[in-house]
Amino acid sequence: MTNVSIIGIGQTEVREHWDTSLRHLAWYAIEAALDDAITTDIDAIYVGNMLAGSLSRQDHLGALIADFAGMRGREAITVEAADASGAAALRQAVLAIQSGLVQTALVVGVEKMTDQTGSAIGHALATTLDQDYEAVQGATPAALAALMMRRYLHTYGLQLADFAGFSINAHRNAAHNPYALFRHPLPPERFAAGTLVAAPVTLFDQAPLADGAAAVIVTHSERAMDMSPHPVRIAGSALATDTLALHDRRDILWLAAAAESAQKAMRHAGITPAGIHLFELHDAYTILAALSLEACGFAPPGQGWQLARDGQIGLDGRIPISTFGGLKARGHAGGATGVYQIVELARQLRGEAGECQVPGARVGLAQSLGGSGGTAVTHVLTIDNFQPPFSAQADRF
Amino acid sequence: MTNVSIIGIGQTEVREHWDTSLRHLAWYAIEAALDDAITTDIDAIYVGNMLAGSLSRQDHLGALIADFAGMRGREAITVEAADASGAAALRQAVLAIQSGLVQTALVVGVEKMTDQTGSAIGHALATTLDQDYEAVQGATPAALAALMMRRYLHTYGLQLADFAGFSINAHRNAAHNPYALFRHPLPPERFAAGTLVAAPVTLFDQAPLADGAAAVIVTHSERAMDMSPHPVRIAGSALATDTLALHDRRDILWLAAAAESAQKAMRHAGITPAGIHLFELHDAYTILAALSLEACGFAPPGQGWQLARDGQIGLDGRIPISTFGGLKARGHAGGATGVYQIVELARQLRGEAGECQVPGARVGLAQSLGGSGGTAVTHVLTIDNFQPPFSAQADRF
Repeated sequence: MTNVSIIGIGQTEVREHWDTSLRHLAWYAIEAALDDAITTDIDAIYVGNMLAGSLSRQDHLGALIADFAGMRGREAITVEAADASGAAALRQAVLAIQSGLVQTALVVGVEKMTDQTGSAIGHALATTLDQDYEAVQGATPAALAALMMRRYLHTYGLQLADFAGFSINAHRNAAHNPYALFRHPLPPERFAAGTLVAAPVTLFDQAPLADGAAAVIVTHSERAMDMSPHPVRIAGSALATDTLALHDRRDILWLAAAAESAQKAMRHAGITPAGIHLFELHDAYTILAALSLEACGFAPPGQGWQLARDGQIGLDGRIPISTFGGLKARGHAGGATGVYQIVELARQLRGEAGECQVPGARVGLAQSLGGSGGTAVTHVLTIDNFQPPFSAQADRF
Repeated sequence: MTNVSIIGIGQTEVREHWDTSLRHLAWYAIEAALDDAITTDIDAIYVGNMLAGSLSRQDHLGALIADFAGMRGREAITVEAADASGAAALRQAVLAIQSGLVQTALVVGVEKMTDQTGSAIGHALATTLDQDYEAVQGATPAALAALMMRRYLHTYGLQLADFAGFSINAHRNAAHNPYALFRHPLPPERFAAGTLVAAPVTLFDQAPLADGAAAVIVTHSERAMDMSPHPVRIAGSALATDTLALHDRRDILWLAAAAESAQKAMRHAGITPAGIHLFELHDAYTILAALSLEACGFAPPGQGWQLARDGQIGLDGRIPISTFGGLKARGHAGGATGVYQIVELARQLRGEAGECQVPGARVGLAQSLGGSGGTAVTHVLTIDNFQPPFSAQADRF
């Protein structure tokens, strides 16, 4: 159990924000988080971003955003770990608070993915892969997801339609999320008719790229009760890595970093998968949703897809996922996505999820992946007065 | 005083490394640092890098380097804060160790600046400036340094030649540093004949861009004695920011972030400028060297240049700077530079600086700047059995 709690959350709509600069977009999320918390006293800012240097020609976002948010002078950096940048930024904030050297920290994930088109976006996304051995051969994130999915279908004797449940669930939930990019349902017959992106991955297996920003404010748990009516505890936090290149892995159907970081975070929190009420996972592709469920212990290898088929990922299912639409329907805003997951999980635990509410949600897992799973960041969140089912005292890390 | 000590250091030559990939370059520095420390057990890796996404089309360096360095699976991220990325990565390692959640951390700064030429490098460097208000107008880092220098010369009635001492000192020291890019002396007459880069800044006021990597390994101070024959304590650590854009500052001759981070780090260590034996500062431009000396309390405003004129910055002077050549003559390897400074400072405190040794060096300051000073990271290093002249107990931060 860490000594860190979330006292403020904020987000912008996930969509094209062509008329909004990076700094404005970040500010709108920060402003919402500051409004949500009972403080304006921020000591350090951790910006999660993956592609602003390539797509907006703007690096050095830490200082830029600190200044624009009225926090000129504060400690501020950018954290980059591909798509997992936002979650990795939260991880740095957790370490900073836990160190005692920082009292209150702001985490903001911000990304503008749609200002550029065509080859610019393709080249930028390929920087998250192994440039020398994958991207240089023309590989794209979608092409690598396709390799994993084709292998999965072959190994377990499945069809594309067996993955429909993931996207249908995501769209169903996003319909009630005013911040989501796609708020319409996805009928099974439409999923089946999806345009191929990289066989067998179709347009409906893959999350849309969009612009967005999300922010959370964290502080010591002891102080949190005075600074929020409903603090959310970060009970577990872990970051693990794997090879960037798929071909360097022993088994391309095992997300080793996802498994490692999930085990660490859950051990840290003193819980097991059976104690998790919902799971915001990284469904950038339906295959990643299935593999994440398996890596994190919610299904044996080869059976993650069955949770979708059997309706176990819905809001009232065994393990609800993508409860506000996930990457697939809320939209994938690059380095902001990991922070969106945390904001959404906090809303669930605070009981403020409206039509998206998972009944009785008190313990949630959020996991963000970078690239093809080369980085995985996992956080366990609980409502602050939650007691884990068994003592976590023995595990001090 | 932090509870963090440096137990291993490593660096590569600063030069063009066209035949070496990013991952190899990082590995050579890591290998040297691992050889220097009595451990191979690394829990987390903090990569400092500013431009690999733009110049090498490779982001996601944390996982990539962890894997390539034989540390597959470990926690690993990239930290970006423009030129200060390497020092900012060290700051994250300090927070991580101090948190108790990470036992031993590796910090590696790596940058390849010379694989691209012409407009590519110019556009990449401009990402460290305010894109919307500076870079879009054609401003470059050199042009902004020129604005500061012109104002300084005007305000204090000086000539370009008054800055010669900074570059001459840097070149004199680099002559004995086998890792330095420029190992030849710079005669005053040659400085005076420097080609204009952005008036009044000449080729000899500005640090050369180069490739390089440097690494340090840090752990809890209590464990450090068992893992190194000569641990170096990180007595103070601070990061502060300022506006990216020069025109947003009240006074373009006052490096507010440099001043703020230096004050915090020295307070943290329980010392004052009078107790500092040497200062590795960010002499990307001679004007930045003068302004850094002023911001950090070694000279009043307008008098930093006099320390160079009076020979007070030499190895036996009042406040030795750029003792292995600084950015000017060792070379400026972007996000690696902040880690080079730490490696060099550690060598000084360990008494291993050879011809570059500052006699009796027991307390050193290292400061890395990002952009035009939008980010400043300051660390105070001491030999591990050093006692500050007055108690730092009252200041727990």
